[in-house]
Amino acid sequence: MTQNATFYHAGCPVCLSAEQGLAHALNPADYAVEIVHLGEAPHRIAEAEAAGVASVPALVIGGQPFHINFGASLADVKGSV
Amino acid sequence: MTQNATFYHAGCPVCLSAEQGLAHALNPADYAVEIVHLGEAPHRIAEAEAAGVASVPALVIGGQPFHINFGASLADVKGSV
Repeated sequence: MTQNATFYHAGCPVCLSAEQGLAHALNPADYAVEIVHLGEAPHRIAEAEAAGVASVPALVIGGQPFHINFGASLADVKGSV
Repeated sequence: MTQNATFYHAGCPVCLSAEQGLAHALNPADYAVEIVHLGEAPHRIAEAEAAGVASVPALVIGGQPFHINFGASLADVKGSV
């Protein structure tokens, strides 16, 4: 059975590199990865925040947030949408 | 053909959570993951540094460093070994 993994990003270069290098590297037999661009889907910022996401890019797996490098803070993403 | 992925850590709680949640989540068909505890293998600190690792836990995939959350800076790891 696959579990959900959500990759939140904001289109920044650091985000795209993490998407290519890490989000797409997860085992597809175990993880169903959803890519969410918070700039294009600002209604999902609250959901990311509730999961503990403080900056993007971040990958939430099993409810646990993993911040990958640093592209932008969630506050900055909020300020720009 | 698999490519190498190296997960560098220092045994900290943040490190262990990233190891379980992310390092072991990579697609085994594509990635051969090596786990390196820099506290136990301090001779590999220089290698991590050369790959661009600035803090642990970090995952180096295809020569690219991905810092995952923040456990400790590499400088702190150096100071403790």
